[in-house]
Amino acid sequence: MPETVNRQVLLAARPEGAPRESDFDLAEGPVPGPGEGEVLCRTIHLSLDPYMRGRMSDAKSYAKPVEIGQVMEGGAVSQVVGSKLSGFAPGDIVFGYTGWQDYALSDGRGLRKIDPALAPVSTALGVLGMPGMTAYTGLLNIGRPKEGETLVVAAASGAVGSVVGQIGKIKGCRAVGVAGSAEKCKFVVEELGFDACLNHRDPDFAEQLAVACPDGIDIYYENVGGAVFQAVLPLFNFFARMPVCGLIAQYNATELPPGPNQIPLLMRAVLTKRLSIRGFIVWDFADQQAEFVDHVNGWIREGRLKYREDFVDGLENAPQAFMGLLQGKNFGKLVVRVSPDPTG
Amino acid sequence: MPETVNRQVLLAARPEGAPRESDFDLAEGPVPGPGEGEVLCRTIHLSLDPYMRGRMSDAKSYAKPVEIGQVMEGGAVSQVVGSKLSGFAPGDIVFGYTGWQDYALSDGRGLRKIDPALAPVSTALGVLGMPGMTAYTGLLNIGRPKEGETLVVAAASGAVGSVVGQIGKIKGCRAVGVAGSAEKCKFVVEELGFDACLNHRDPDFAEQLAVACPDGIDIYYENVGGAVFQAVLPLFNFFARMPVCGLIAQYNATELPPGPNQIPLLMRAVLTKRLSIRGFIVWDFADQQAEFVDHVNGWIREGRLKYREDFVDGLENAPQAFMGLLQGKNFGKLVVRVSPDPTG
Repeated sequence: MPETVNRQVLLAARPEGAPRESDFDLAEGPVPGPGEGEVLCRTIHLSLDPYMRGRMSDAKSYAKPVEIGQVMEGGAVSQVVGSKLSGFAPGDIVFGYTGWQDYALSDGRGLRKIDPALAPVSTALGVLGMPGMTAYTGLLNIGRPKEGETLVVAAASGAVGSVVGQIGKIKGCRAVGVAGSAEKCKFVVEELGFDACLNHRDPDFAEQLAVACPDGIDIYYENVGGAVFQAVLPLFNFFARMPVCGLIAQYNATELPPGPNQIPLLMRAVLTKRLSIRGFIVWDFADQQAEFVDHVNGWIREGRLKYREDFVDGLENAPQAFMGLLQGKNFGKLVVRVSPDPTG
Repeated sequence: MPETVNRQVLLAARPEGAPRESDFDLAEGPVPGPGEGEVLCRTIHLSLDPYMRGRMSDAKSYAKPVEIGQVMEGGAVSQVVGSKLSGFAPGDIVFGYTGWQDYALSDGRGLRKIDPALAPVSTALGVLGMPGMTAYTGLLNIGRPKEGETLVVAAASGAVGSVVGQIGKIKGCRAVGVAGSAEKCKFVVEELGFDACLNHRDPDFAEQLAVACPDGIDIYYENVGGAVFQAVLPLFNFFARMPVCGLIAQYNATELPPGPNQIPLLMRAVLTKRLSIRGFIVWDFADQQAEFVDHVNGWIREGRLKYREDFVDGLENAPQAFMGLLQGKNFGKLVVRVSPDPTG
């Protein structure tokens, strides 16, 4: 496949509120050749994840923003098509943060070979990748689930939430999911085996949550924020834990919600119920990667942990798919098929 | 001293907002005689502490409220004046939650003998008692101070904050206090040895705090809430820790502050800075009591840890003193002298 054109999705403008098509630019350029010590990768699967919204903004955060005119940041599964770097050979399947583009050069830093015999290679972006590891490390290190406890998981059909709840079940918890449609809720209960799943769009969602958690909530795995958190807060038990890895419901917000200021309510709950709230990103637990892959892959093979992927075809559709992700339009881990998967 | 009258401060009404005189009742009754298995204690020093505001309210909390007509709850140092319980003899000095009264019967549960040779017995209510242990356990278990880090302490001249900052200094931190008057700030820096102390009533308090913390804030020991917390939030470093043991600034509030709702701001900081926020009460660390007394008493003897007590004379003045405590009118650990100290 002698390709000559490299398409790239660039950040054209910093979004105000929800990103729009005009915040992205589809550029074309030549496919670069690898220099000494470099690898040329052809993207197979591009991962789309909520954290990318943060990279589009220049508000201070834990990572640098993408600059205007730069290729959008993203993890991808690729095939090596040219290599002047020892350890990598054409044909290798690799994972790396190679961005929203058809081809990428890499000096090998952050590039990791993937064994296609282990699992479908797209899972390196989801259940066996960053989202799965976010679920695993946040739940086990911060949530510290104990048998018989109640675990509530937002975005329960998504890449992270689906894994959180299933690991919670494996650890003996009651798992209550929250999702954005009846169809997603059905999947979460019937396919993933959660004990219950509630639609946060239902007007009586808070009441439903109280009914679904008759013994209160011991762990709330926070990846959305907003209304779900507000409904969870009064249900916390003493010594409840709240890992915070995402706040997708507020990423597009351009202003704070109307008053009153509810921080005193939150802090009162923290004090009187002795809550633990802790933010993290997956790389805070980088040393647990091998253990994570080992455990989660084992659970998948035993049929105890399932995953769902939502494929979109074509790099040119990545911006639209990403905008939908921020509104919960995806159903499962969102992956863009950029080129045919030679292993599938 | 054959006393015949037992005065008791009762909860007369649940306060709306700040407590008033009329929320308390000073009642008189006979001094009871100890039955089999009981001890009669005469109160020497009564402790007044912010948590008591919570006991006056029937909002759900970690402890039951005082009922209307009941004796106000409180820890006190007392002398045993009659005993039909083995292990306690007249003349013993004891600590117990014997309440706002001249005399109290106890079945011995929660009653602990105090050695007057160790330190002035009033310290069992402050630096060597519940407030000191709150400081010690919260800072060391949740704050986890490391050499060179910046620790901010609210209510820095108070019973808890003064100990927090001094232990922080012993552990090698930069200690920045916050207090409610220039006189208190002077004491905190000159007597207690904090690196800086700021008056939260100054209009440019937030700017002063930023200047006093040039390397950001690694630990904020939260015992007041409100405006101090708002000024601290933007200064947190990555992986900062926030033990929460009190929120005195909001105890008397009858409504939430005006909007916008700043919870999304707080949660964004939790996520992007990977903050840890954890509420606790001292008894969550009950097994560390011996270690606490040992360490803090050692530091006092070495001259590395100082304390200040604010004495008020007369049980009848306890309500007024308590109302002042909630407004920060005390200067040091607030103690009511109920009867002469036979050890002093």
